[in-house]
Amino acid sequence: MMNNDKNLAKINGKTKLVGLLATPIGHSISPEMHNLGYTIGGLNYAYLGFEVGTENLKTAVEGMKAIEAAGFNVSMPNKMEVIQYLDEVDDSAKYAHASNTVVNRDGKLIGYNTDGLGYVKNLEEHGVKLEGQKITLVGSGGVATPIAIQLVQSGIKEISIFARDDKFFPQAEENVSYINNEMAHFGVKANIFPLEDKETFRKEIAESAVLANATSLGMKPLDEMSILDDLTDVLREDLVVTDVVYNPQKTKLLAQAEEAGATAINGLGMVLWQGALAYKLFTGEDMAIEEVKKQLFDEIL
Amino acid sequence: MMNNDKNLAKINGKTKLVGLLATPIGHSISPEMHNLGYTIGGLNYAYLGFEVGTENLKTAVEGMKAIEAAGFNVSMPNKMEVIQYLDEVDDSAKYAHASNTVVNRDGKLIGYNTDGLGYVKNLEEHGVKLEGQKITLVGSGGVATPIAIQLVQSGIKEISIFARDDKFFPQAEENVSYINNEMAHFGVKANIFPLEDKETFRKEIAESAVLANATSLGMKPLDEMSILDDLTDVLREDLVVTDVVYNPQKTKLLAQAEEAGATAINGLGMVLWQGALAYKLFTGEDMAIEEVKKQLFDEIL
Repeated sequence: MMNNDKNLAKINGKTKLVGLLATPIGHSISPEMHNLGYTIGGLNYAYLGFEVGTENLKTAVEGMKAIEAAGFNVSMPNKMEVIQYLDEVDDSAKYAHASNTVVNRDGKLIGYNTDGLGYVKNLEEHGVKLEGQKITLVGSGGVATPIAIQLVQSGIKEISIFARDDKFFPQAEENVSYINNEMAHFGVKANIFPLEDKETFRKEIAESAVLANATSLGMKPLDEMSILDDLTDVLREDLVVTDVVYNPQKTKLLAQAEEAGATAINGLGMVLWQGALAYKLFTGEDMAIEEVKKQLFDEIL
Repeated sequence: MMNNDKNLAKINGKTKLVGLLATPIGHSISPEMHNLGYTIGGLNYAYLGFEVGTENLKTAVEGMKAIEAAGFNVSMPNKMEVIQYLDEVDDSAKYAHASNTVVNRDGKLIGYNTDGLGYVKNLEEHGVKLEGQKITLVGSGGVATPIAIQLVQSGIKEISIFARDDKFFPQAEENVSYINNEMAHFGVKANIFPLEDKETFRKEIAESAVLANATSLGMKPLDEMSILDDLTDVLREDLVVTDVVYNPQKTKLLAQAEEAGATAINGLGMVLWQGALAYKLFTGEDMAIEEVKKQLFDEIL
């Protein structure tokens, strides 16, 4: 049986709870990732997944505070809703209007957003310089938004956001308007275009240092798809192409990028870094990222 | 470091939370006992301790429900308070006016009391017949009450309760009145006497099959004390003497009992059984009591 080799007997009365409030919860890798980190780091924390939707979110958040959980992650569909139940929000969550990481600091719940930070941190780790650059970002959803918002806070000069011309397009328009107005002090120009406008897409990529996919195109069952379609001639050697998808590790987009000699960066690093940043916020310690990556991702992917 | 050998990495998104709401929580053995049981049994549960007092209890209970915890134990100072926040109470908790075990059954919180059941179950396991017997019980507190109430439901004919003539005496009087009135249908006669009345104490023990200590006399730092003081001549070979104290495993009272050839039963079995009964209620499975006892108690005591 799969759990026979589990050794929970070391959990004691002082073990601190952390967890994830989301639904559906079943396939999240966060519990494995965090617990592996705590095990390697010798920290007395345990991370569990909790099936919580927006209707139970308030009670769950208040309950996590009442049982003195060290903190918790928040995922779909609760990232925006959770903000109203927190005592304070960090800039990373404030500008994204969404929090994926809540820390219980002496009974006060403080919201952060490590999704966007994780993306940026992963780029930095790959030696990508963002200062003064232009970025082309595809997507308008729950992953694209914090990435866009964090990029704006990371020294870039311009961001062009492409989204399909569907019912979610207004959200992308709103993000862009928010960056150009409420976040004007960061001095970043944001543009919004429909993804169907191939000529503009081509032109913006040509002017960008980074092309970022923040949609689920490329993830199973959409693993035969790429945001580029047949526009692969826009790829060039000094372009950095990033994907938020990490399963498969090499999406069609990233295969196209490699083929053209561009730098290809998959979503693994972002997932690890958003977790590591949360881990640091929960525990004050650095997660042993390389060891966690080796033990966790080599095994499950 | 003590927790380096902890392997929490097997906790995944499907691991069910159980826990203990109490304060102070630090030295409770319930987390170790339950997690050891789950580990041995290959069950995907994790049991944590939560520092919760009466002021946070309502929010904590509602929160445990909202995050779909499988259930939780309740200890000092919350056992009586918790009742008002539950959807239903089992007879074991109803008559004791206290619950130490709450089960989340499809979103309904149902309260049980396995403290008293654990005591009775342990007696049965030691071959003690309660049917038609008279019992002398010493104590009026949070452990004594559920034991008395459960004994009444277990076929005895009479119970004589002794309590020190202090500010807690009225609680013992109330318990006795409750047994004689609200629980009259069980057909048990309950008596209440001050522990200072040595002649009555002697007489009641002489008529009893079991002498039960449900006070902390005998536990460190009171380990040089015994409810019997110098009344050891009341001990006889066919008397069963039980103690709720399990650290030390052989209290002064039990040493006196053994010396006199009486049967001596310490509190270990009760602790194990109250946990095993909760485990069964949480998981539907039997806890591997003997293995848990061997691995846990041999180590910590």
